[in-house]
Amino acid sequence: MAEIQESKESLQESLQQVITLLNKHKLIEGLVQKQDMPKQALVETLVHKQNLAELQKKLDALHPADVAYILEALPLDQRLDVWDLVKAERDGDILLEVSDAVRQTLIADMDSEELLAAAEQLDTDELADLAPDLPKDVLQDLLESLDASNRERLQSALSYPEDAVGALMDFDIVTIREDITLEVALRYLRRIGSLPDHTDKLFVVDRHDMLHGVLPLKRLVVSDLDSGVDEIMADDAVVFHPEDKATDAAKAFERYDLVTAPVVDENNKLIGRLTVDTVMDFIREEAESDMLSLAGLREDEDMFSSVWKAMQNRWTWLAVNLVTAFVASRVIGAFEGSIEKIVALAALMPIVAGIGGNSGNQTITMIVRGLALGQVASHNMKSLLQKELGIALLNGLIWGSVLGVVAYLLYGNVALGVVMTAAMTLNLLLAAVMGVLIPLLMTKFGRDPAVGSSVLITAMTDSGGFFIFLGLATLVLL
Amino acid sequence: MAEIQESKESLQESLQQVITLLNKHKLIEGLVQKQDMPKQALVETLVHKQNLAELQKKLDALHPADVAYILEALPLDQRLDVWDLVKAERDGDILLEVSDAVRQTLIADMDSEELLAAAEQLDTDELADLAPDLPKDVLQDLLESLDASNRERLQSALSYPEDAVGALMDFDIVTIREDITLEVALRYLRRIGSLPDHTDKLFVVDRHDMLHGVLPLKRLVVSDLDSGVDEIMADDAVVFHPEDKATDAAKAFERYDLVTAPVVDENNKLIGRLTVDTVMDFIREEAESDMLSLAGLREDEDMFSSVWKAMQNRWTWLAVNLVTAFVASRVIGAFEGSIEKIVALAALMPIVAGIGGNSGNQTITMIVRGLALGQVASHNMKSLLQKELGIALLNGLIWGSVLGVVAYLLYGNVALGVVMTAAMTLNLLLAAVMGVLIPLLMTKFGRDPAVGSSVLITAMTDSGGFFIFLGLATLVLL
Repeated sequence: MAEIQESKESLQESLQQVITLLNKHKLIEGLVQKQDMPKQALVETLVHKQNLAELQKKLDALHPADVAYILEALPLDQRLDVWDLVKAERDGDILLEVSDAVRQTLIADMDSEELLAAAEQLDTDELADLAPDLPKDVLQDLLESLDASNRERLQSALSYPEDAVGALMDFDIVTIREDITLEVALRYLRRIGSLPDHTDKLFVVDRHDMLHGVLPLKRLVVSDLDSGVDEIMADDAVVFHPEDKATDAAKAFERYDLVTAPVVDENNKLIGRLTVDTVMDFIREEAESDMLSLAGLREDEDMFSSVWKAMQNRWTWLAVNLVTAFVASRVIGAFEGSIEKIVALAALMPIVAGIGGNSGNQTITMIVRGLALGQVASHNMKSLLQKELGIALLNGLIWGSVLGVVAYLLYGNVALGVVMTAAMTLNLLLAAVMGVLIPLLMTKFGRDPAVGSSVLITAMTDSGGFFIFLGLATLVLL
Repeated sequence: MAEIQESKESLQESLQQVITLLNKHKLIEGLVQKQDMPKQALVETLVHKQNLAELQKKLDALHPADVAYILEALPLDQRLDVWDLVKAERDGDILLEVSDAVRQTLIADMDSEELLAAAEQLDTDELADLAPDLPKDVLQDLLESLDASNRERLQSALSYPEDAVGALMDFDIVTIREDITLEVALRYLRRIGSLPDHTDKLFVVDRHDMLHGVLPLKRLVVSDLDSGVDEIMADDAVVFHPEDKATDAAKAFERYDLVTAPVVDENNKLIGRLTVDTVMDFIREEAESDMLSLAGLREDEDMFSSVWKAMQNRWTWLAVNLVTAFVASRVIGAFEGSIEKIVALAALMPIVAGIGGNSGNQTITMIVRGLALGQVASHNMKSLLQKELGIALLNGLIWGSVLGVVAYLLYGNVALGVVMTAAMTLNLLLAAVMGVLIPLLMTKFGRDPAVGSSVLITAMTDSGGFFIFLGLATLVLL
C-alpha cells in the first residue's frame, strides 16, 4: 500500500519538494554563469547535475495526475522547466490530465515531433480529447498515422459536440455472445489476459454487434459455470446514444449508480461505452464552469496566464457590467434635481439597490437550480412566484421599516423614512418577479440560464431601485 | 433494455403523468364532496379509485431515485399525496434519495411506526445518512432494534463529522485470504451467491482483518485458476482512514479513477469501503453548496418550503448585506457637502463602485478555486498578486479613460473626467489586492474562503469606491 497512497497524502509536499529542487537548480545555474573559475564551476556543475537527477527521479515516481497537479500550480517559466524534465513517453497521459488553459501553454512549448510522439501513445478516445488543442498539421499527420478503423473512430468522436455522450465515450469494450456458458466465457477472458480499466461488465452482442444485454463481472464470478450467458445477463441495462446530452447521462449515472454503460447507435448496435471516471470529470468541469460564469469569467483560466490572456477572459462581463452601470447612472442623472434639493437621497439610494440585488440573486439561484434539475416548469411556476413574492413582501416590510426608522433618525424626516420603507418593499418585489421570470425566459429562448442571469438581475434591481426610490422621493417629498 | 432506460428518457414525462393523475384525482374528490346525489357519487368514486390505482401503478414502476425526483418537483400538498401512495417498503430507499430539506417534509408526515418500519429496511451506512433527520425517540427505538455489531457501526458512523470519510463509508466488504488459489476463491464466491453493488475488488485480509491487498475482479476473471491470491492481488491500493477529509478522498477518486477503496483504521485493520457513487453524490452536494453560499443562501432549500422557512434560510446574508450597504451609505453621507455642490458625483459614483465589485469577484473566484485545489500558497502569492495588479491597472486605464471621456461629455468638466479615470483605476487596484488577500486571510484563520468572500469584497469595493471617488472629487474639484 505504498506509492499511490503516499503521493495522495503528500501531494502538497511533492509540490514543495519540486519547487525547492527547482530553486536550487536555478540558483546554481546563476552561480555557474556568474563565476568563471573553472574549478569552482566544475563542483557546481556536479551538484547541479545531481540536483536535476533528483528532481527527475521525483517526477518519475509521481502518477501522471499528480504531475499535472504540480504543473498547474507553477508559474509559466518553472512549469516549462518541469515539463522538460518529464519523460517523453508520459507526455500524452499528462496532457490529458491538465486543464485546457495549462495544456495550451505546454503544447506551445513542444515541437511537432514531440507532439506526434505524445499523441501516438494515446487511445482513440483520449486523442479525441486532445485533438482540438493540437496544431492543424500535427492533427493531419496523426490522422494519417492511424489505421482505418481508429481514424474513423477519431473522426466520429470529433464530430460530436463537447457536451454529447459521443464526445465522452471510449472504445474499450469487451464483448461476448449469449449462446455460450459462463465456463466458456471465463476461458475466453483468460485467453484475452487483461481487461480495460473500469470493466465491471461484459457486453453481450450478436454477430452483428447488436446489444442484447450486459453481464456484470460480479454476477459472472458468483454464478454456476454451467449456466448460459443468456440466463445470467441483465437485459435491462441503461443504454445511451452518442447524440444524448452528457448532462443527462451524468444524471443517469448518479441516479442509477452506474460504473460503465453501453453506448449504441440508432439500430442498437454497440459502438462504445461510458465510464464513471469520465462522467465524474464532466460533472466537476460543469460545476466549475457554472461557478466561473456566475463570477463573470468566460472560461477556465490558467492561474499564471499572461495579463493579456486573462484580460481577454474577463473583458466580456466587465463590458456588460459597464453598460448596466452606465444605465443605472443615467437613471440617477434624471433625478439630479431632486438630489440637489435633498442630498440625503444620494446616501440612501445604494441601500435600496444593494438589498434588491442580494435578494434577487437568492431567488434566481433557486430557480436556475430547479431548472437545471428539470423541477421548475409551467405547472409550478405560479406557486414559486407566490412564495418568492411572499418572502419579498415580508422582508421589505421588516427590513424596510428598520431602515425607514434609521433614515428618520439620521435625517429627522418622517416622510423620508416612509419613502425608504416603500421603495425597499417595491424593489424587493421587483427582484422576486425578475428572479423568477429572467431564468424562465432565458430557458424559453434556448439560452443557459446560469450564464448572465446574475448580471441581468443586478442590472434591474440597480436601475429599478434607483428609479423607484428617487421617483417616490420626488413625488412625496418635493 | 426496457424499464430503467425508459424512465431515464422520460423522467419529465413521468412527472407530467403523475401531475395529471393527481389533478384528476383532486378534481373528482372535489366533485364527490360537492354533489351528494348517491348514484352520481357512486360512479365518481369508481372513476376515482381507478385513477388512484393507475397513479399507484405508475409510481411502483419507477426507480426510487425517480420517485424522489418527482417528490422534489411537487408543491407540499401534492408531494404528500404522492408520498402516501408510495408502497411502505420503498419509503426507506426514497428517503435516502431526496434532499435534506424535502426529507424533513416527508418525515414530518410519518408517524413513529412508519419511520421505524422504513428505517429497518436500510443498511447501517444508509441509516447513518438518515439518522440526523429522525426524531429522537425513533432513533432510540432504532438503536435498540439493531444487533450489537450493527449498533456499534451506526454509532461510530454517526460519531464522524459529515465531511469525513467515516461518515461516507459503507460496510459491504467481501474479504478473502491471500494463501488460497483463485480456484478456491471463485468457489467461495459462488457459495456466497451474490456480491454487494459496486464490488469491483475483493479485499485480501489476514485472520485479524489486517488489509494485505486487493484483488480486482477483472484480474480474478483473466488469471490462471492455479495462481495464488497473493500472486495476483495488488498491494499498492489507495487506502483511506475514517478521519480523512471527504474532499481529499473525492480528489483521490477523481485522480486515480477509483470505483471502490478500502477504509482502514490506524492499525491497518479493514473497517469499511468507499464507493464511487457515494463520492459522486458528495462532489455534487459540495458543488451545489458552494454555489448556494456564493448566492447568499445558507443551505439547500426545498423549492416549495413555506415563506417562513425560506426566510430563515436567507436572512443571515441579507442582514450582512444590509450592514455593508449601511456602511457604504455612511461613507457617502460624509461627502454630502461635495455632492450638494456637484450633483453629478451622485450619478457617477455607482459606476466606480460597481466595476470594482465585478472585477474583485473575478479575482476572488480565481483565488478561491486555486486554494480549493491546493495550488495557491505562499510560494506563488507574489506572482498572482502581480498578475492581478497588472490586469487591474490596464483595465483601470482603458475603461477608466472611456468613462472619463463620457463623464466629460455629459457634464462638460475636464477635471471631473480625470477624477473618474483615477478613481476607477484606484478602485480596481483595491479590488485586485483585496481579491487576493481576503481568501488567503480567511484560509489562514481556518475559514472556508468560498463562504462570504464575495460579500466581503463587494462591501470593500462599494465603500472603497465611494470613498476614493468622492474623496478625490472633494480634493480636486472643490
